[in-house]
Amino acid sequence: MQPVSPGPRLERARPDLGRRGRRRGELTVATIARLAGVSKPTVSRVLNGRSGVADDTRRRIEQLLREHGYRRPSAVAPSPGVEVLFYGLESHLAVEILRGVQDVVNDHDLGVGFTDVLACAGRNRSWAEQLLARRPVGVITAHSQFTAEQHAQLAASGIPLVAVDPSGQPYGEVPSVAATNWSGAVAATRHLLQLGHRRIGVIGGPTDSLCARERLEACRAAMETAGVPVDPRLVRTGRFWFEDGLALGRELLGLPDRPTALLCGNDLQAFGVYEAARQAGLRIPQDLSVVGFDGIAASHWCGPPLTTVCQPFREIGAAAAHLLLALIAGQPPAQTRIELATTLVVRASTAPPAQSAPVS
Amino acid sequence: MQPVSPGPRLERARPDLGRRGRRRGELTVATIARLAGVSKPTVSRVLNGRSGVADDTRRRIEQLLREHGYRRPSAVAPSPGVEVLFYGLESHLAVEILRGVQDVVNDHDLGVGFTDVLACAGRNRSWAEQLLARRPVGVITAHSQFTAEQHAQLAASGIPLVAVDPSGQPYGEVPSVAATNWSGAVAATRHLLQLGHRRIGVIGGPTDSLCARERLEACRAAMETAGVPVDPRLVRTGRFWFEDGLALGRELLGLPDRPTALLCGNDLQAFGVYEAARQAGLRIPQDLSVVGFDGIAASHWCGPPLTTVCQPFREIGAAAAHLLLALIAGQPPAQTRIELATTLVVRASTAPPAQSAPVS
Repeated sequence: MQPVSPGPRLERARPDLGRRGRRRGELTVATIARLAGVSKPTVSRVLNGRSGVADDTRRRIEQLLREHGYRRPSAVAPSPGVEVLFYGLESHLAVEILRGVQDVVNDHDLGVGFTDVLACAGRNRSWAEQLLARRPVGVITAHSQFTAEQHAQLAASGIPLVAVDPSGQPYGEVPSVAATNWSGAVAATRHLLQLGHRRIGVIGGPTDSLCARERLEACRAAMETAGVPVDPRLVRTGRFWFEDGLALGRELLGLPDRPTALLCGNDLQAFGVYEAARQAGLRIPQDLSVVGFDGIAASHWCGPPLTTVCQPFREIGAAAAHLLLALIAGQPPAQTRIELATTLVVRASTAPPAQSAPVS
Repeated sequence: MQPVSPGPRLERARPDLGRRGRRRGELTVATIARLAGVSKPTVSRVLNGRSGVADDTRRRIEQLLREHGYRRPSAVAPSPGVEVLFYGLESHLAVEILRGVQDVVNDHDLGVGFTDVLACAGRNRSWAEQLLARRPVGVITAHSQFTAEQHAQLAASGIPLVAVDPSGQPYGEVPSVAATNWSGAVAATRHLLQLGHRRIGVIGGPTDSLCARERLEACRAAMETAGVPVDPRLVRTGRFWFEDGLALGRELLGLPDRPTALLCGNDLQAFGVYEAARQAGLRIPQDLSVVGFDGIAASHWCGPPLTTVCQPFREIGAAAAHLLLALIAGQPPAQTRIELATTLVVRASTAPPAQSAPVS
């Protein structure tokens, strides 16, 4: 099924970094400069994407470079990079984190490397060996699936390491950046209480996830301090997946005295609840208010747009990059744990409860 | 609002690649080996993430490395990378493409670099200059926003270049990889025809996008060849955004003789149509069938799950990486244009039309 032939052999694909083979490149630059009737520095400016070359001169040089098949000398050492590790597909979080890292490290002439550890499975070498062979100057782990053992392994390699930590897991001596799960969940709960909801159900994330427990306990605490203790029959936990939101939403919406509002552990669970409500013939927000957590792009696109607690993923990536740059420079990290504020974004999935729960 | 102090200065953040400062590192490896009572190669195995070290030995070495603050010698040149360029946030496509590239290039000890060109805006140097300063061995552009001029600029730099091309744009001499837009749209249209739909509306993408036109014309052609020419009043075009799907969906669903099914230019437009249907009190698929295009993750999560034409983004990324490796190795590309097959995934948003369109 592979549409093209296997890639060329390793020896050919990797530029030879050991030799200083500049001569060929310089010769070509000189030739191009002569043919274009410009100076060598002008050709270099075009080669390096710099400004300060008139448009028609640039186009003439580009044309000559193409015609003469100019190839950049391969002996120039590449710039180092910061690797950001993910585990499996969480595209809705990954790109924002990558952009935040890029915002910071590009100014230091460092690239941003992407590695999905799960996609490395089944190869000859472990992901760690592959990663370390690429000699990044620093590593950011961006998923809760990384174990303390994996962090120890990376830390032992001598490469500076920072964890972006959506799950609230502590990683020993590895500095980490996350969002304020507790305040976010409190804000979500108070929003429903202020709308007048009293029968509020909670769908939590997996019980072995610290951030899931933090969010769940924050909902409980916010309700108890408001004098509206949560009904234990209205609390469920499951994985942070659409399917779990759907199954647990069905359970809760099938109760004789069903909740008028549901707090979900993340946006995917909220999407599952949407589907459970749709299947039960319940309208959001008229018959059921729903709140998510994360603020992924898809939370704009669901019907109706989801009220949710947004995590600042781009800022989290940037903060992790700042910590990492300090470590790379041999400085102790200014903080070993940073939690950035979440924001409750109220959209169309929450409203005051109906006077009495409609009979379905 | 920046949570941590600005990063360390450039001079310190970038490892010094010019000097061969191995001595300190070797000394430390030897010391660690002595303290752990193992050979230096065993310590190296741990440092490089390789297997073949007993668990307790590994843990002892890791512990010593941490205690002694081992730092990898910075004079070792980093491995080169392939840069994948995006333009703005298209996270639902980006990560799958990145994984596909990773699937191929990691086996060649090349890293995968992520650059969002839009996030580079407003800096001192252009994105091209920043990119070229990092000296990637190859570049993949992964968004239709890259102009022929930008491709010429990159091509002139002498760095091998391949375009992943969701929009069907031709890029002169730059090899490109895309999906079969025409067959995908034909398959979607035939699916609705086979269900019995005759009043089928089409929401196309922007008229200046070749892929959008290809999909729209394929829908027309499939309907005409089936003897069910499309009613021109049921055709609209707009941006590939949720908001445009919502606005155009409202127009079409507000017609006196509204369509019983809608073909959308991409999934985001389909999500907008879902919202338009919800607001109009129409049920999907009972009152309206909807088909998307792309097969992004969120198409699983909408209510009901969306029937859509899936693009093989990961395979597209892998094919682009294969082409790029050939160019890096100095071989002519086996193909200059590759189109990979789409797959119609039938979910719950399509069903036979009601006997007569219900009065709303």
